Amino acid sequence: MTRTDTGYTLGAIVERFGGELIGNVDVVVNQVAPLSSALSGHISFLTNPKYRRQLQNCRAGAVILDVAERDATDLPRILSDNPYAYFAKVSALFNPRHAESPGIHSTAIVDQTATIPASATIGAYAVVGEGVKIGEHAVIGSGCYLGAGVEVGDDSLFYPQVVVYQGCVIGKRAILHSGVVIGADGFGIALENGCWIKVPQIGRVVIGDDVEIGANTTVDRGALDDTIIEDGVKLDNQIQVAHNVHIGAHTAMAGCVGVAGSAKIGMHCTVGGGAVILGHIEIVDRVNISAGTLVTKSIAKAGTYTSVMPFSAHQDWLKNAAHLRHLDKMAEKLSELEKKISELERKQP
Amino acid sequence: MTRTDTGYTLGAIVERFGGELIGNVDVVVNQVAPLSSALSGHISFLTNPKYRRQLQNCRAGAVILDVAERDATDLPRILSDNPYAYFAKVSALFNPRHAESPGIHSTAIVDQTATIPASATIGAYAVVGEGVKIGEHAVIGSGCYLGAGVEVGDDSLFYPQVVVYQGCVIGKRAILHSGVVIGADGFGIALENGCWIKVPQIGRVVIGDDVEIGANTTVDRGALDDTIIEDGVKLDNQIQVAHNVHIGAHTAMAGCVGVAGSAKIGMHCTVGGGAVILGHIEIVDRVNISAGTLVTKSIAKAGTYTSVMPFSAHQDWLKNAAHLRHLDKMAEKLSELEKKISELERKQP
Amino acid sequence: MTRTDTGYTLGAIVERFGGELIGNVDVVVNQVAPLSSALSGHISFLTNPKYRRQLQNCRAGAVILDVAERDATDLPRILSDNPYAYFAKVSALFNPRHAESPGIHSTAIVDQTATIPASATIGAYAVVGEGVKIGEHAVIGSGCYLGAGVEVGDDSLFYPQVVVYQGCVIGKRAILHSGVVIGADGFGIALENGCWIKVPQIGRVVIGDDVEIGANTTVDRGALDDTIIEDGVKLDNQIQVAHNVHIGAHTAMAGCVGVAGSAKIGMHCTVGGGAVILGHIEIVDRVNISAGTLVTKSIAKAGTYTSVMPFSAHQDWLKNAAHLRHLDKMAEKLSELEKKISELERKQP
Repeated sequence: MTRTDTGYTLGAIVERFGGELIGNVDVVVNQVAPLSSALSGHISFLTNPKYRRQLQNCRAGAVILDVAERDATDLPRILSDNPYAYFAKVSALFNPRHAESPGIHSTAIVDQTATIPASATIGAYAVVGEGVKIGEHAVIGSGCYLGAGVEVGDDSLFYPQVVVYQGCVIGKRAILHSGVVIGADGFGIALENGCWIKVPQIGRVVIGDDVEIGANTTVDRGALDDTIIEDGVKLDNQIQVAHNVHIGAHTAMAGCVGVAGSAKIGMHCTVGGGAVILGHIEIVDRVNISAGTLVTKSIAKAGTYTSVMPFSAHQDWLKNAAHLRHLDKMAEKLSELEKKISELERKQP
Repeated sequence: MTRTDTGYTLGAIVERFGGELIGNVDVVVNQVAPLSSALSGHISFLTNPKYRRQLQNCRAGAVILDVAERDATDLPRILSDNPYAYFAKVSALFNPRHAESPGIHSTAIVDQTATIPASATIGAYAVVGEGVKIGEHAVIGSGCYLGAGVEVGDDSLFYPQVVVYQGCVIGKRAILHSGVVIGADGFGIALENGCWIKVPQIGRVVIGDDVEIGANTTVDRGALDDTIIEDGVKLDNQIQVAHNVHIGAHTAMAGCVGVAGSAKIGMHCTVGGGAVILGHIEIVDRVNISAGTLVTKSIAKAGTYTSVMPFSAHQDWLKNAAHLRHLDKMAEKLSELEKKISELERKQP
Repeated sequence: MTRTDTGYTLGAIVERFGGELIGNVDVVVNQVAPLSSALSGHISFLTNPKYRRQLQNCRAGAVILDVAERDATDLPRILSDNPYAYFAKVSALFNPRHAESPGIHSTAIVDQTATIPASATIGAYAVVGEGVKIGEHAVIGSGCYLGAGVEVGDDSLFYPQVVVYQGCVIGKRAILHSGVVIGADGFGIALENGCWIKVPQIGRVVIGDDVEIGANTTVDRGALDDTIIEDGVKLDNQIQVAHNVHIGAHTAMAGCVGVAGSAKIGMHCTVGGGAVILGHIEIVDRVNISAGTLVTKSIAKAGTYTSVMPFSAHQDWLKNAAHLRHLDKMAEKLSELEKKISELERKQP
């Protein structure tokens, strides 16, 4: 047995996940921990060279290192081309998802036309509408609300108090955190005589497999067509995804991002915290948007894009800010000086 | 009969909403759809000239066009001065709000002093406090919480899990989406010896008629006086409206906007996504704030206002950013050069 | 008796809170109100000189003023070094927290291993998990969800629909507003072959005493270690605090702030609305971040920091914006001119 009562041997870990083990295969670890606080039963990791110094005094039972760090410590170590991904897998091994007891809580209100497999869990005070289809082993947390016709894929996990409006579709292995709202009306309003008329939002939200959505994030339903989130997308907390947005597979967005209506974002993109992407623009695959950046135009080429005003001490900023409003004046002055200098040069003997 | 079993004739639509019909009055349509996917039973629309090309291959039963586009297609068409508003009305005709069966769900907890007309709907697990007054045909979704003394106007619709704190007033035909919190305490804190003392927030939130508020948007109660949202205001998702803000009638705000305490915003304004409006400032009627703009001072004149750092490829940004911190140096240098040139000019023969 | 049936005498107020009273000690006031609308039973205050004019026509029974404003009115007045804090205390005296009747609502689902003192209140439809410990006189609002092992300190108040994930700890006298989510998973993802692997988030959120958290704010649990919010921190609405952030005691943040992972913020800091603080940076004590500022680097010195693009009329902005993208060109041109002028100066007789 390589899985001991209290953990896994390093040998078992390498057998399962690959990598090169340097040190005793029989060392047993049972939890992950940071370099600074790890003890003998822990396995730790180093991915950021900034923390290499912590490796010197580390008391972990073992560490996961980049292959380039082979000699950075004498501790038992596993070398990997991708130590952070390796660590993620080891941590998942030690920290499996809490197993729920399947079944429908006696206080859940489930429409008789809903399909709930015996392997699924429906929490207390959840409300499940007409025609809802829940996948195998899915967990719907307490107080969640699923509107009519919602579909939830196998092995998905909704934390308490998620709301999904009618007709939206969520794939397999989704994780939706508390306060997420999927499928609320998009912001469709038409102006007539100074007043706004509501445009009915008759599209859905369709979410692929392996998508995680952070706490209090909102994804609006489409106006006519659907809002689409493809497989493997990861959204952090407090993000707003407007109607008819299309987010390509394996794109990740940090907290507080806003994506306006009908924006189309490619695959394998990253969007930094607080960035805003305007509506009706298109961003190709493999684009990285820096935190705090406002994307006002389509981006046709992979790469990193930024629009950040550098911060500074307020007094320094004040001095600068005055000029920020008058760059056109500076540019004009510069042109005048250029002319004068040409004039002077021309007049020279 | 102009209303057929499966839809409306174009004649019936024009009779109801006006506009000029070109084509067969007996064509029947039963749903709206985008130009690109509309079929014969659909009516579509064109408002953005960018999509005019899609009109060429459009298979819709009819389209709604601007009067200027009279000859842009041979399809049956309705010409309107305001095709988007026209479309909104047609869509509302085909997509009426889902009719709820009135009544109080057996699991709702309704205080005996609350007033709930027979035409209203109170959803499962809703909690309705002392003295609450609900209007005719109002719908309070499942899991909503209405504190003591809350008033909700006729025909209002609260989606599941809206929270309204005690004493707040919401007008007629309101639509509040899931996760909305109305009337939480404003951020009133006073500093004493380095610690913060809470300032009780004893005002209310008072919301007019025909207001829609998007998912997870928050509107705080006033510190002493009320926070006011006038008739016809439309707020998108994830917006924060602080205590004692006053938003004028028919103003619309896109997602992720933040409005700080005691800001007064006029009527018929628009605020773009992610914009921030600082506290204690006043904005007159008919002001448009661009997305991502930080409004730091009062605005006394109608018009469009912007404070956006243009985004660029990160490498280009890096080159620029260095100078952004040192504009005052550039300005100084420019002045020095000006002096030297005057000197040179003066010395010329 | 200095406390009358309907209020407090000024004498009683000064006896309790200090300050210098000028005027009749027997004047009775029973509520706070703004200068502009206060009547004879009200006590008002002036802290912003901008409103001094309102003092002239003020009809309040008394006012609270800075000692420097001793002669600004003939009204009965209390002079204080800190009139706003004084006002906060007087307002709290007149507006005590609504007293809940202790007890567990019959619809609350409380695990039998949870510890709920008789003085605590658990609202309707609340769900309280295994091993939860609730403090004396704590109030858990209706529809709240407390995961396994959560601890809540004495006298804390959770408004309806707060979610706290398993294992998180909240101190005494906390106020958590509706829609707050504490302890959702941090955004820990590792990239492997273009796909994201979830990194289990096994830390907790640990919150000190006297912390208030605004509506729909989210605080994520730590990846390995805990996310820490120290005593006396005040967070406004719609804030995102990422995993492993550490917020020092008595720091206050306005609405819509985002704090990225592992940022360490000192004590007695303030962060303006909509500011974003990037991850893995450190900010010392007594730093003030202006609204809308993006903090991209550690701050080692107390003071105020800003990165704001000043807003302007859109037409003016357009003129400027062109140059914003080409500051490096302007700087180059400036250098060239400098050289040419030196050349000209050198050539002069």
